[in-house]
Amino acid sequence: MKPAQHLPVGLFDSGIGGLTVMNQVMRTLPYEHLTYFGDTARVPYGGRSRETIMRYTIESTIFLMDKQIKTLVIACNTVSAYALDKLRQIFNIPIIGVIEPGAAKAVQTSRQGRIAVLGTKATISSGAYQKEIQKRMPGALILPIACPLFVPLVEEIFISHPATRLIVKEYLKPLKQEKIDTLLLGCTHYPLLREAIQEEVGEDITIVDSATSCAESVAAALQSLGIANSQESKPRYQFYVSDDPKKFQDLGRTFLGAPLDNVEAVSLFH
Amino acid sequence: MKPAQHLPVGLFDSGIGGLTVMNQVMRTLPYEHLTYFGDTARVPYGGRSRETIMRYTIESTIFLMDKQIKTLVIACNTVSAYALDKLRQIFNIPIIGVIEPGAAKAVQTSRQGRIAVLGTKATISSGAYQKEIQKRMPGALILPIACPLFVPLVEEIFISHPATRLIVKEYLKPLKQEKIDTLLLGCTHYPLLREAIQEEVGEDITIVDSATSCAESVAAALQSLGIANSQESKPRYQFYVSDDPKKFQDLGRTFLGAPLDNVEAVSLFH
Repeated sequence: MKPAQHLPVGLFDSGIGGLTVMNQVMRTLPYEHLTYFGDTARVPYGGRSRETIMRYTIESTIFLMDKQIKTLVIACNTVSAYALDKLRQIFNIPIIGVIEPGAAKAVQTSRQGRIAVLGTKATISSGAYQKEIQKRMPGALILPIACPLFVPLVEEIFISHPATRLIVKEYLKPLKQEKIDTLLLGCTHYPLLREAIQEEVGEDITIVDSATSCAESVAAALQSLGIANSQESKPRYQFYVSDDPKKFQDLGRTFLGAPLDNVEAVSLFH
Repeated sequence: MKPAQHLPVGLFDSGIGGLTVMNQVMRTLPYEHLTYFGDTARVPYGGRSRETIMRYTIESTIFLMDKQIKTLVIACNTVSAYALDKLRQIFNIPIIGVIEPGAAKAVQTSRQGRIAVLGTKATISSGAYQKEIQKRMPGALILPIACPLFVPLVEEIFISHPATRLIVKEYLKPLKQEKIDTLLLGCTHYPLLREAIQEEVGEDITIVDSATSCAESVAAALQSLGIANSQESKPRYQFYVSDDPKKFQDLGRTFLGAPLDNVEAVSLFH
């Protein structure tokens, strides 16, 4: 059996958004092999029920476990919000989500403990970010806002379109009532709208996301478990998707900030 | 065995949009029992590959066949575009899609044979509407336009939002170059944007959709097969969905134009 340190780190996302997390993991851990699975045949998860999210996640995790990974990153906020505890119960592998690192980052950034959290409908109604922020900063004022149109707008590359600015303005209306100092992007797609959001909320509000602190958590976990890759050679990046690899490869470049080789279509369904 | 005429007509859609077709079937055939399945755990189909659309459709059709339906309406443009021929090969039941009736309606409406077709990415790239229009009106000028943001905008009830008007304007830019007289709404969600689209294109362009003519095709098929329901009593409407029934029930009212009772969650996956 291969020593664990040479095995890849697995990353799971419902689709393409997790590539923004992978990008940070690549920067933080430049010698780790990475194996990404995006469930593009069933994306988006953000409007689905807990039961459906759970079933899709377990099937996807089994697929990645079979690829012999040494640790698993849940690079999807919706999945982290609903399934992390369950996955840790079921699977015999260290599992790192994006909610805990994101909440920690927001708390660390916020001066007055007034934090807005943007996410999918499922992430927001799970209350996961709210819980993790409260745990670290009891009494924090938290303003959770579901922004379901942000994902399709990003995927259609309507990133700086005037319509997108109007939708940003619409969703962020509650910020007119409630003064906040920190805004947490609780969905892997949202960093691509950072500029439009910053322009809407003004420079006094600090925008944070989970990707950087999630990558730091991965580094810390590998270190403490003694399974970081000691070989300083070019790592292998492998991608699997459940729908058309071509579309993932084309659009993925925008999310990963680098070209994607080795994209393979797989079926989870038989 | 029950005589066929008392069995329900089955309707299949990837999600909730097919309820606009069901609404027309209810008007045209007020005494027919109707059984609807929406694959809400895997919606939307409109950006997925042919293979994935085909697999999901076959699973969904098997589910409906098991419910003892006398005829099947494919109330989804994307599925009609990709899977209709295959379904007719496989399943021993009359199957009616939305593409043929929609194309027939557009051709019947158009005076100069200059027709724009709006649809999902998958529907547009299938070329199905283009083929069916050409067959009925050789030499017609056809302007196909994919409008992937229309479905999420409708599902988020951003129907008369200024952002939606900007997105309508963006997608319909090609109409500035190419003079058309008829615009076909080739997706079951789009009738809910009819007003915004009409306002953008002006009153000289006639907007048509598939729902009415699809319902007429169903009526004609039942008649010619001698399986129309002869009992003039209140019909039963049964709905099945693969994800949360509550969400479907709430949002469905906008699409069906009537409240939805009898919504049941089912799993296609074991």
